Amino acid sequence: MFFEGSEKKIEMVTSPEWVSLRALGRSFWAEMVARARADILAVLSNEHCDAYLLSESSLFVWHDRFLMLTCGTTTLVDAALYFFEQMPPEHIRCARFQRKNEYQPHLQKTSFMDDIDRLSQRVSGCAFRLGYLDGHHNYVFHLDKPYEPAIDDTSSELLMYHIKGKNADYLCSEYQRIKDIRRLLKLHQLFPDFALSDWLFKPCGYSMNAIRDNRYATIHITPHKNSSYVSFATNLDLANSPIVPILLKQLNPGCWDLIGFNSRWPEKVLPKNTPYQCLSTCEIQLSCGYRMGFNHFQHSDHRKVQAEKL
Amino acid sequence: MFFEGSEKKIEMVTSPEWVSLRALGRSFWAEMVARARADILAVLSNEHCDAYLLSESSLFVWHDRFLMLTCGTTTLVDAALYFFEQMPPEHIRCARFQRKNEYQPHLQKTSFMDDIDRLSQRVSGCAFRLGYLDGHHNYVFHLDKPYEPAIDDTSSELLMYHIKGKNADYLCSEYQRIKDIRRLLKLHQLFPDFALSDWLFKPCGYSMNAIRDNRYATIHITPHKNSSYVSFATNLDLANSPIVPILLKQLNPGCWDLIGFNSRWPEKVLPKNTPYQCLSTCEIQLSCGYRMGFNHFQHSDHRKVQAEKL
Repeated sequence: MFFEGSEKKIEMVTSPEWVSLRALGRSFWAEMVARARADILAVLSNEHCDAYLLSESSLFVWHDRFLMLTCGTTTLVDAALYFFEQMPPEHIRCARFQRKNEYQPHLQKTSFMDDIDRLSQRVSGCAFRLGYLDGHHNYVFHLDKPYEPAIDDTSSELLMYHIKGKNADYLCSEYQRIKDIRRLLKLHQLFPDFALSDWLFKPCGYSMNAIRDNRYATIHITPHKNSSYVSFATNLDLANSPIVPILLKQLNPGCWDLIGFNSRWPEKVLPKNTPYQCLSTCEIQLSCGYRMGFNHFQHSDHRKVQAEKL
Repeated sequence: MFFEGSEKKIEMVTSPEWVSLRALGRSFWAEMVARARADILAVLSNEHCDAYLLSESSLFVWHDRFLMLTCGTTTLVDAALYFFEQMPPEHIRCARFQRKNEYQPHLQKTSFMDDIDRLSQRVSGCAFRLGYLDGHHNYVFHLDKPYEPAIDDTSSELLMYHIKGKNADYLCSEYQRIKDIRRLLKLHQLFPDFALSDWLFKPCGYSMNAIRDNRYATIHITPHKNSSYVSFATNLDLANSPIVPILLKQLNPGCWDLIGFNSRWPEKVLPKNTPYQCLSTCEIQLSCGYRMGFNHFQHSDHRKVQAEKL
């Protein structure tokens, strides 16, 4: 049984003078989530944000912004199109739609090119691929509309593949407990004072949303013997944070990607004795105001591959 | 306009006491090629072998063996199934079916798993993937039947991606001449005393078959600005040959794979000052008597990637 961990992602910013997106209520968001062929499992709220845990990843809703990530064979483009249909275009200030390269793209319902064909029929946008087509890469489509993000409007994704070691073995095992996963990921150290909402899937798989004020962090673990995937996404500033080095140490991925929007890279992500090497790096200034970066790293142990019996 | 250069490949060995495969005649092979949705463009023969140039790659037929490679969206599995239907199974001594990771797998008519489901309904086989699912890799399915290849029964594939420099620019240009491509690839130096048969496609693309006695070499060039692909396959012994270093020098690929069946790797493929680094290596002894190796290399200049506008 294969499950695609690689995510699609949308983030939109709306006019603050317009309705609060939170006031649209759970029924609106449940409908949008359903369009992507996912369900809401749980919700966690604070003064700034509603954080929904989904059957396939997460949705965060602020007053004038939302972020939705979905994995598996969900059709996130349908959710994006639903939002565009419901909302007056002049109140959408910024919209970005991303897709990560999939382990098994032929099992997806649509390709990124199919998605942008549909999006382009409704809104005017630009699309790019960062990274080679035959390697790790990230696709982005964004509204072709000038926007000036606030100085603290940065976001980062750490996408880890082929996790190894005893923590990885535990995460791939049948008997897991939320308490052990939280400890293994060092969540209380990484996200102090955050409210957490997490979910353990059967037979395995784990999702976590964390919020503090207007900051979020989300982790999704798709364990597979030869194609594991763990994603971490946040709007925290990672530059002076131990989060990336700690997650890499705890999960020991064979390779990983770091994607950022106006984000500063953690200086100590690759300390002197790192076993990781940067194999691919790509940066572009998008006309929607974000500088997008994509970087791919590989562990020195990742070179020797076992043939996989199919 | 995108064209998938990545190839599917079948190689089968039949009993020498059975009919000569060459005696089956062009009509038989034309029918088999048609099953894969390709056509025969030209044929070159010598005492040992018929080398067919196809609309999508090549077919080589010896008395007791054939090798067929097809690219694009051809369905080589249908050709393999046709051969299995036509031939008494006791006369098929060895059969291997391979598929390279594709640039755009979702555009293919079937996946490798679909193909082996169909093959397995007719013959008993084993399947493996060499290389990570999220990186360059090669799939192989082979008859689960013991076979002892002759000592000189070795084959190699050099698969080059993202070719760069003035030769690459020429190969991607609109106005090309066979004579210039032969010179650029140094074919007369690489394959002395070989008979050549080659073809220039419109608007671009080049295929070449070469034979000498029972030895073959074949080159297929799929030029694309950001997803070029050049394949070279041969049963020549590459260990003490300058072929691989010369092709790498002339085409300057950003990355390349070397796949072998009982082949010895060229010692000087990676000399001291090579710009290439081996990022992935995998070997397996197949129960059909071949030791299969897969290696992936990347050029140091390949790290910096330009975002591609879509």
